Amino acid sequence: MLQIMGERAKTAEPVMRTLSTEKKNQALRQAAEDLVKKQEDILAANEIDVKAGKEAGMSEGLLDRLALNPDRIEAMAEGLRQLAGLEDPIGEVMGMKKRPNGLMIGQKRVPLGVVGIIYEARPNVTADAFGLCFKTGNVVILKGGSDALHSNQAIVGCIRSSLSKCQITPDAIQFIEDTSREVTGKFMKMNQYVDVLIPRGGAGLIQTVVNNSTIPVIETGTGNCHIYIDESADLEMAAAITINAKTQRVGVCNACESLLVHTKVKHDFLPVLAEALREKQVLIHGDEQVNALVPDSVKAEEEDWGREYLGYEISIKVVDSLDEAITHINRYNTGHSEAIITSNYDHAQRFLDEVDAAAVYVNASTRFTDGFEFGYGAEIGISTQKLHARGPMGLLALTTTKYIIYGSGQIRP
Amino acid sequence: MLQIMGERAKTAEPVMRTLSTEKKNQALRQAAEDLVKKQEDILAANEIDVKAGKEAGMSEGLLDRLALNPDRIEAMAEGLRQLAGLEDPIGEVMGMKKRPNGLMIGQKRVPLGVVGIIYEARPNVTADAFGLCFKTGNVVILKGGSDALHSNQAIVGCIRSSLSKCQITPDAIQFIEDTSREVTGKFMKMNQYVDVLIPRGGAGLIQTVVNNSTIPVIETGTGNCHIYIDESADLEMAAAITINAKTQRVGVCNACESLLVHTKVKHDFLPVLAEALREKQVLIHGDEQVNALVPDSVKAEEEDWGREYLGYEISIKVVDSLDEAITHINRYNTGHSEAIITSNYDHAQRFLDEVDAAAVYVNASTRFTDGFEFGYGAEIGISTQKLHARGPMGLLALTTTKYIIYGSGQIRP
Repeated sequence: MLQIMGERAKTAEPVMRTLSTEKKNQALRQAAEDLVKKQEDILAANEIDVKAGKEAGMSEGLLDRLALNPDRIEAMAEGLRQLAGLEDPIGEVMGMKKRPNGLMIGQKRVPLGVVGIIYEARPNVTADAFGLCFKTGNVVILKGGSDALHSNQAIVGCIRSSLSKCQITPDAIQFIEDTSREVTGKFMKMNQYVDVLIPRGGAGLIQTVVNNSTIPVIETGTGNCHIYIDESADLEMAAAITINAKTQRVGVCNACESLLVHTKVKHDFLPVLAEALREKQVLIHGDEQVNALVPDSVKAEEEDWGREYLGYEISIKVVDSLDEAITHINRYNTGHSEAIITSNYDHAQRFLDEVDAAAVYVNASTRFTDGFEFGYGAEIGISTQKLHARGPMGLLALTTTKYIIYGSGQIRP
Repeated sequence: MLQIMGERAKTAEPVMRTLSTEKKNQALRQAAEDLVKKQEDILAANEIDVKAGKEAGMSEGLLDRLALNPDRIEAMAEGLRQLAGLEDPIGEVMGMKKRPNGLMIGQKRVPLGVVGIIYEARPNVTADAFGLCFKTGNVVILKGGSDALHSNQAIVGCIRSSLSKCQITPDAIQFIEDTSREVTGKFMKMNQYVDVLIPRGGAGLIQTVVNNSTIPVIETGTGNCHIYIDESADLEMAAAITINAKTQRVGVCNACESLLVHTKVKHDFLPVLAEALREKQVLIHGDEQVNALVPDSVKAEEEDWGREYLGYEISIKVVDSLDEAITHINRYNTGHSEAIITSNYDHAQRFLDEVDAAAVYVNASTRFTDGFEFGYGAEIGISTQKLHARGPMGLLALTTTKYIIYGSGQIRP
C-alpha cells in the first residue's frame, strides 16, 4: 500500500514541479470553495471522531483541537485562499554569475519533491499542510492521528475532488489511512519516495520521528524559552514582556518558560513581577533567592530548568552576571526563542551573538517567533534544528534549489 | 570516551562561535606552517599505515590514497592557507526588515556548532575538513578509517598544538581513535552533542550513515550522471563533451556514466563517438540499437542504467524524444549532474526545468560540478540531497542562520 502511494507520488512529482502559478492558485481557491460547500459531510465525519474521542475519555484540550465547526472550516478555507494570494517562490533564479570560462551558473528555486507530514489529532493541519506543500509545487503524503481519521478522510477526499475538477492529478495529496505503528515505521524509511519528513505535534511524536526516520527530518517545536532581565533593564518593560511571554497564550512553543534575573535588580523586580504573575495564577518555581523574596513560590528542582511547562508555571533563577545567564540558557534551552531585557548596548550585542537559538530578542516578547508575525504570510512550523531551515518556516522552507548551468561547449581542462 | 569528547566539543563551541576572523585566519596559517615543519613526524606515522596496508594486501588505488609525501603535505598546508584567504561568511546579517510593530528582524549567519565527519582512508581529509569547519567557526569531531589511524593521529596532534600556540582551545578539533563499529554506531546517535554528520567516502559508507544516524546527515557523493544528445545537437560539441565527461577523470562522482542519444542522430553520432571512446579504451554497454551500430559494444542489462561505473565503462541508450530522455534520467539518476547537448531553445529550457538533479547543464561537461569550478574557493563535498545544501558545498554549507530581533518593548497583542 505504502509502495503504491510512493509510486503515485513519484508520478505526480514531475507534474507538480512544472505546474504554473496560475493553475496552483486556481486549485487552492477551488479547494477552499469546496471545503465550505461540502462542510456538512466534513462535519458529519468529524462528529464520528469527536463521539469516539468522548467515549474513549479524551481530554477537553484534545477534544477541542479535534472538533470542527463551520467557523473552523471557514478558517481552513481562508488559509487556502491566503496561500493563493502569496507570491510563488518556485522558479526564481538566484545569484547567476558568469565564470571565467564563460559558464553561466545560477541557483533556481524548485520544490523539494515529496513531503511527508506526520501529525496528531488536529484535522485543520490536513488542509493547512496540503496548501503549503501544494503552493510550493510539492506532493504531500499525510499521516494523521487515528483519532481524527474520519475527519481527515473527508477533508482529503474533498481536496482530491477539487484537484480533479482543475485537471490536476489528485495524487498531489495522499493520505495514509492505516494509522498503525508498523505502517508509520515503514513510512519513515521510504527514502526512495519521500524527500523530507516534517512531524507536527508534541515532543513525543517529534522524538519518535527523529529517532526512527532515515528520511531527512525537519525538527519542529519544543520551546524552553528564556527571558533574562539584565541589571540595566527598564523594569516596567521587563515585567510587561515577561507577563506577555508567559501568559498571553500558555500552550505554545514560543511562550516563556524560564526567567533569569540579575541579582542587582532582584529586590526591585521580583516582588512586583510575582504580584502580576499571581493575578494570572502562575506558579513560580524559584531558586533559594527567589523563594526568599516570593513567599508563595515553590522550590525549583534541577529538572525545572529544562521543563517546557506549556501551562501557568514558570521557573525563575537569580544570576550574578550576563555570562552566567548566557551559560545557563545555552545549557538548558531547546534552541527556540530567547530574550534579553536591557538598556546596555554591549550586553544586547553579546546576548545576540552568544546565545544559541533560532530566534534571539532584545527588549521584545518571545511570543513573536511565528511565521505570520515575521511577515511570511504562512507557516509550516518552527524549526529548532540548524539544517535547512531555522526558526519560523514559511513557503521557502518547503523549497530547495538546483544549479542551472548555461554553457557553450565547455569541457574541463 | 565519546561522551567526554562531546562535552569538550560543547565547551569549545561557544569559544568558536565568537572567534574573530583574524584569529581564525592566524590559526589556519599557523597550522599550515606546522604541518610542513613537522612533516617528518607525519610521514613516519604514515609509513606505519602504508606498511600495514601493504601487508594486509590493500589495493594499489587505496594505497595511493593513503600514502603521504612532502608534496601532499604541502598541498594540505596550501589548502589551509587558501582558506585563510577566503572571506569569512560568519556574522553577515541578511534581509533585516522593520515590521509594522517596529521590530527589526534579520537573519545572522552563524556556525552550525559541532560537525561530525566520518571518512575513510584519506589522511588529507583530516586537515581539509578541519580547515573548512574551523574557518566557519565550527567544532569538528573526526572519525577516520582504521587504515589511516597513525597518519590521522599525527595530523590532528600537529593541528591541536598549532591551536594551543594561538591560544585557541585545541578541542576545536577532536579525533575518535577507536575505529570499532560499535563506537561509530554510538557516534551517529550523539544528537545531544553533534549538530550535523557529513560522511565522506564511498556509497557504502554514506548509506551506512544515512540508515543509522539520528543526527541530521548531509548526504554527499554518488553520481550516475547522464548526457542527452538531442536531435538538434552540434555533434562535434556533443562528442567533445561526452569524451571529456567520461574520460577526463573516471573515478569521480561528476563523471558521465550514461549517455542518451536521440534516434535521429544515432547514425551520424554513434560510430564517431564509439571510435573516440575506443581510443580511450572505454567499454560501451548499449541497448539493441547501439549494439547494431557499434559492433564492439556489449549488451546493456537493466542494472547498467543505474550503475556508477567509476571507470572506463559507459551505458548508452537510444531514445525517441526529449520526453523519453527526461523520464529515463529522472528514473535512474542519483540527483547529481545531468547535461543536454542541444541547439533547440525550448529543449534546453525544458531540460533545465524538468530534470531533477543538483546541477543541470546545457552544452557543457558534467565534470564542472565542483566547489572550486563554481567559484567557492573550497569544497566540503557535493550534496545529492535536497535539504540544507544541494550541489557543491562551499563554506556556506557549514553555516546556519539565527534570527536576531531588535525590539523596544514590543509585546504580542
